[in-house]
Amino acid sequence: MRVDGRKLDELRDIDFTTNFIKYPEGSVLIEWGGTKVLTNVTIEESVPHFLRGQNEGWITAEYAMLPRSTQDRNIRESRKGHLSGRTMEIQRLIGRSLRGVIDRKNIGERTLWVDCDVLQANGGTRVASITSSFVAAYIALNKFTKKGKIDNLPIDKFLAAVSVGIVDGKPMLDLCYEEDYKADVDMNVVMTGNGDIIEIQGTAENEPFNRKELDKLLDLAETGIEKIVKMQREIIFSYEDK
Amino acid sequence: MRVDGRKLDELRDIDFTTNFIKYPEGSVLIEWGGTKVLTNVTIEESVPHFLRGQNEGWITAEYAMLPRSTQDRNIRESRKGHLSGRTMEIQRLIGRSLRGVIDRKNIGERTLWVDCDVLQANGGTRVASITSSFVAAYIALNKFTKKGKIDNLPIDKFLAAVSVGIVDGKPMLDLCYEEDYKADVDMNVVMTGNGDIIEIQGTAENEPFNRKELDKLLDLAETGIEKIVKMQREIIFSYEDK
Amino acid sequence: MRVDGRKLDELRDIDFTTNFIKYPEGSVLIEWGGTKVLTNVTIEESVPHFLRGQNEGWITAEYAMLPRSTQDRNIRESRKGHLSGRTMEIQRLIGRSLRGVIDRKNIGERTLWVDCDVLQANGGTRVASITSSFVAAYIALNKFTKKGKIDNLPIDKFLAAVSVGIVDGKPMLDLCYEEDYKADVDMNVVMTGNGDIIEIQGTAENEPFNRKELDKLLDLAETGIEKIVKMQREIIFSYEDK
Amino acid sequence: MRVDGRKLDELRDIDFTTNFIKYPEGSVLIEWGGTKVLTNVTIEESVPHFLRGQNEGWITAEYAMLPRSTQDRNIRESRKGHLSGRTMEIQRLIGRSLRGVIDRKNIGERTLWVDCDVLQANGGTRVASITSSFVAAYIALNKFTKKGKIDNLPIDKFLAAVSVGIVDGKPMLDLCYEEDYKADVDMNVVMTGNGDIIEIQGTAENEPFNRKELDKLLDLAETGIEKIVKMQREIIFSYEDK
Amino acid sequence: MRVDGRKLDELRDIDFTTNFIKYPEGSVLIEWGGTKVLTNVTIEESVPHFLRGQNEGWITAEYAMLPRSTQDRNIRESRKGHLSGRTMEIQRLIGRSLRGVIDRKNIGERTLWVDCDVLQANGGTRVASITSSFVAAYIALNKFTKKGKIDNLPIDKFLAAVSVGIVDGKPMLDLCYEEDYKADVDMNVVMTGNGDIIEIQGTAENEPFNRKELDKLLDLAETGIEKIVKMQREIIFSYEDK
Amino acid sequence: MRVDGRKLDELRDIDFTTNFIKYPEGSVLIEWGGTKVLTNVTIEESVPHFLRGQNEGWITAEYAMLPRSTQDRNIRESRKGHLSGRTMEIQRLIGRSLRGVIDRKNIGERTLWVDCDVLQANGGTRVASITSSFVAAYIALNKFTKKGKIDNLPIDKFLAAVSVGIVDGKPMLDLCYEEDYKADVDMNVVMTGNGDIIEIQGTAENEPFNRKELDKLLDLAETGIEKIVKMQREIIFSYEDK
Repeated sequence: MRVDGRKLDELRDIDFTTNFIKYPEGSVLIEWGGTKVLTNVTIEESVPHFLRGQNEGWITAEYAMLPRSTQDRNIRESRKGHLSGRTMEIQRLIGRSLRGVIDRKNIGERTLWVDCDVLQANGGTRVASITSSFVAAYIALNKFTKKGKIDNLPIDKFLAAVSVGIVDGKPMLDLCYEEDYKADVDMNVVMTGNGDIIEIQGTAENEPFNRKELDKLLDLAETGIEKIVKMQREIIFSYEDK
Repeated sequence: MRVDGRKLDELRDIDFTTNFIKYPEGSVLIEWGGTKVLTNVTIEESVPHFLRGQNEGWITAEYAMLPRSTQDRNIRESRKGHLSGRTMEIQRLIGRSLRGVIDRKNIGERTLWVDCDVLQANGGTRVASITSSFVAAYIALNKFTKKGKIDNLPIDKFLAAVSVGIVDGKPMLDLCYEEDYKADVDMNVVMTGNGDIIEIQGTAENEPFNRKELDKLLDLAETGIEKIVKMQREIIFSYEDK
Repeated sequence: MRVDGRKLDELRDIDFTTNFIKYPEGSVLIEWGGTKVLTNVTIEESVPHFLRGQNEGWITAEYAMLPRSTQDRNIRESRKGHLSGRTMEIQRLIGRSLRGVIDRKNIGERTLWVDCDVLQANGGTRVASITSSFVAAYIALNKFTKKGKIDNLPIDKFLAAVSVGIVDGKPMLDLCYEEDYKADVDMNVVMTGNGDIIEIQGTAENEPFNRKELDKLLDLAETGIEKIVKMQREIIFSYEDK
Repeated sequence: MRVDGRKLDELRDIDFTTNFIKYPEGSVLIEWGGTKVLTNVTIEESVPHFLRGQNEGWITAEYAMLPRSTQDRNIRESRKGHLSGRTMEIQRLIGRSLRGVIDRKNIGERTLWVDCDVLQANGGTRVASITSSFVAAYIALNKFTKKGKIDNLPIDKFLAAVSVGIVDGKPMLDLCYEEDYKADVDMNVVMTGNGDIIEIQGTAENEPFNRKELDKLLDLAETGIEKIVKMQREIIFSYEDK
Repeated sequence: MRVDGRKLDELRDIDFTTNFIKYPEGSVLIEWGGTKVLTNVTIEESVPHFLRGQNEGWITAEYAMLPRSTQDRNIRESRKGHLSGRTMEIQRLIGRSLRGVIDRKNIGERTLWVDCDVLQANGGTRVASITSSFVAAYIALNKFTKKGKIDNLPIDKFLAAVSVGIVDGKPMLDLCYEEDYKADVDMNVVMTGNGDIIEIQGTAENEPFNRKELDKLLDLAETGIEKIVKMQREIIFSYEDK
Repeated sequence: MRVDGRKLDELRDIDFTTNFIKYPEGSVLIEWGGTKVLTNVTIEESVPHFLRGQNEGWITAEYAMLPRSTQDRNIRESRKGHLSGRTMEIQRLIGRSLRGVIDRKNIGERTLWVDCDVLQANGGTRVASITSSFVAAYIALNKFTKKGKIDNLPIDKFLAAVSVGIVDGKPMLDLCYEEDYKADVDMNVVMTGNGDIIEIQGTAENEPFNRKELDKLLDLAETGIEKIVKMQREIIFSYEDK
């Protein structure tokens, strides 16, 4: 039915590899269909100027695509000398989403740097980044809590993201690149583990959409996020057991 | 009740001054509460490289704030040497919204440059920019249609935007700066004249929100946009009469 | 006789609107013929590094043109990533002129930021900027003096500027864009209220000029500046009465 | 004996994973001790300006480190807005080395983009980059030759690189990070499959070295490169069999 | 009387060394008191975009100071990544001055690049640059005329520049660094060989000046320029004889 | 035999002019065949951040070419807004070489800025820069030692550099531009006064080279450097006698 044979409400396969890189406090390679994002979380013992002396932490994200993560080669942003608007938009979204579920007042004067580097892109890199960032940040903060550097784990909600959209007139879950490319409506939804909304961004690429269609899309998103959070839970708990 | 005495579903005063600047094809100064945005639309007889020879046009927006449009003076982006993420996000949103209601295939190989310069900022600069951009673009394209440079006016829907949010637990319409600053949920909604959605961007600044709250916010947005489109209609038709 | 019917020694109409923007310490919109410049003065409670601890202040100006302030659209300097030589020259001239009449030793460790943003350009933007900057700076410093933050008003001379030039062999006062464009000699003169020179910049665009022609041009400039200072005086005193 | 138990003339383990990324014409993940470099080769159907119409190709490399490829997090070069001298030096070296064994006159008007992205750094990232680049370029060019786009495989020599150095007075092969850090002499050698030199770069970090020591270091390099070329040969031939 | 024993209307020693660098079409090292500027003129067989096909040439100047041309070391502009306002102002002035005496319609579609590099700075670098630029440009254009590439020498006036100023209340000619540093009024005058004005730039650094003082300064400038043009004439004619 | 009549092991003429510029602590103009490099050494009373409080100094170099130091005019790096890879490579090499013979622990918390500006380029600008830098640094540090600011001269070895290469199959010493341009192998060697190696950088431009050829090139380099050090010794001792 769909270009890759999935049902309208079916997710692509999602895999998490923890500790892919050995130096970061939290490191997760997420493989979500044909999309691969390496997410590394660093906990730095300082905060930006504007927060010094206020006894709270900071969480910020950087997102980048390797030049050949896509069909055609892209010019590196370091060669252009500036970040594209798309990159800025995505990294601001990742940072905002994490700040929505991590209690910055409870991590001390520390900065969480979340680096999302897309190795291979096939649709949904921003939702894959948010979803793996949560796992990597959880691992990093849990380590610090166990070592006693942080009193209590400053996370009490799960966080995941998924894309939904209207393609050929049909609302569907988790768009791959080919679907994303021709979607009439494209929406990214970031939710907590119990289905509350952290962020919703929906765009009519070709045709405006109505409230009823919006509702249908949010239903699909909820279903997807529920399944993703389940996987996150498993990977986090199996990690802790080790 | 609200900080400036408005009811929860009440808009601030909105005024449009057309032809504020004499050179552009369309020029509108919008004054929306304490927010003033000068919007100039230029029609250029060329398109970017990637569209040449395809017999369609391009629509792009640039947004900037004067250094002293705010309480404290901001550094000019021309002195920093780069645009902030916020600026990029907003100008991408303005461009996308206009492309949602203007038929690019029907404007020839031309570029619509939409310049939104915030002279004074008091909340809602992005929705004011979208709302006035539509009026300035309408005026500019209408001129070109009347002169016969364009066959038919390539606009068949109105476009307006408004902010809504949850402040102190209460959903409300059209946040001023003081409300925006402390909002738990902040949402910008871009709609057509008949209430379909072009873009929706909602963020939980402090607390996640649920589907029911989302519905309430969209109801408020619909009410507001209906009134704003009415004002746009008046200003456009009185302009045409002249 | 001249392109807009003026006599050789006649100024264009000049209007000052104070408080055009509500946040700055001094805000003046000057409309000088077809030229409109918004001038905002900010008083900041700090000085640059090189002046710290020396108990004197700093005065600096920034000048910019909105993209569609001109016949054809200009690229924003923030998008080019650097300032043009023309912009730098003009803002250095504005700053130097103000430093010539404001006593920096008497304003404490504060910085006067003078922002001149050209909304519409029709010749003489730099002299309009200097002329309105003086009014805006006067208003700002007068407020600080009345509040007791500054002991005595650190200004004891008026300051204004005007352009003169030789067009079609005729020396004339206050060039509009069409005259400026074809001038053989173009000169900007900055003077105090009693006719002393603060800055003189004269350029032979096509033909060298002699000492006698220079004298004629300076006579015209003196006449013009005398009238302009009268207008500044009125606007400042009517402002103080309020 | 050495920090990781190796003998003075012993290489660390080296692994090549081909097709790690699916889009590039050649993709190799090299894991060399604790160093991991993802190398993607793109063949683009165009050449830079200065080569157009000359019927020859171009080969160029870009090198970058992920922010958390190292013990401490590095700032991205895209955020700094420029490349460091070290980055430039390394990517120029990679490009020059490949141009030494690939016949540019025999690849048509095409550009080989070689992207080396360091995922994890533990000494020797530049020699790992050169070594894996050769494999990825071989795979890419071989594909094009088989498809008939290129007449004959434009490679007739193997290419590999290795580091050698003097640490605690002892010449040794293949420095890991801890050895590199305290080396008195640090040398990178790039050789062909039959032991001829393509590039030699040796630096006395603390103590000058003499001709005899240089000879000893080159002997070690030759031994190492012989073994590395053997591995390259295996990976390339097993790839071709597939 | 003056800091270096000169009379008020006395120039410092001025020396011109032609052919200091062998590659440029015109090369002059000017030594003017303690100021040394290397001026190289390049004639390039092309013009900028905006002049193509109009059968006229372009003249442009670039000015720079070596980091240690001054008492204290300056940061290179190539390391800052942008030009200072002062640099831009000076190079625009040099270009404008030369365009005032060279007939661009008579040099074909060529660009004159004038490079002024200050090796040692001791006051008056901009007037030294203009004065030596004229000699170097004359040599370069004369060569092209003799070779028949240009029909007639496109120069019919000499060009020189000098600084004047008011120091300790006294008008004086040709300020050295120590005088420039404490001048109340600082003026640069660019004149043709017969005493007509090409450019005049005067600034009141501390005290405004009146018309009478301006006249006295222009008298001094005329005297100085007459002497300088005499030296230029000698160096140019002795060069031609060779 | 060679393009300029030299024997295979013959150096071009080398001249050192000390005190070419009067402000720097050490200033040397080196003329090496047709290559002219102005080298100025500044001793600054501070160190970069990363060295503060560690009681050691820093040595860093900057290299640049004047636009018309070459046959065709080059664009200034200050206009491009960034340094080329070649520039970075060369200035890193100069700095590293000097750090190899100057004892940074013995110069106090000071920075040696070494500015190498190429006035005329005809091959070997990097080895000329290193060779003259050593002389200028010696002069500067010797002054500081004599003044008692530094206890003992922190230099106990001489430092010089020379290029060697294989051209038309023949190994030769000190390549001029025409030889360098067509060399098969190009090598720069930096040695101490007693023939130990500080840095060796050899590149096969067209053909790989073998160990025997490398040996021959190093023999040539040794011969050349011995002669150059002799000249350095003379210039330094004659300077000290003055």
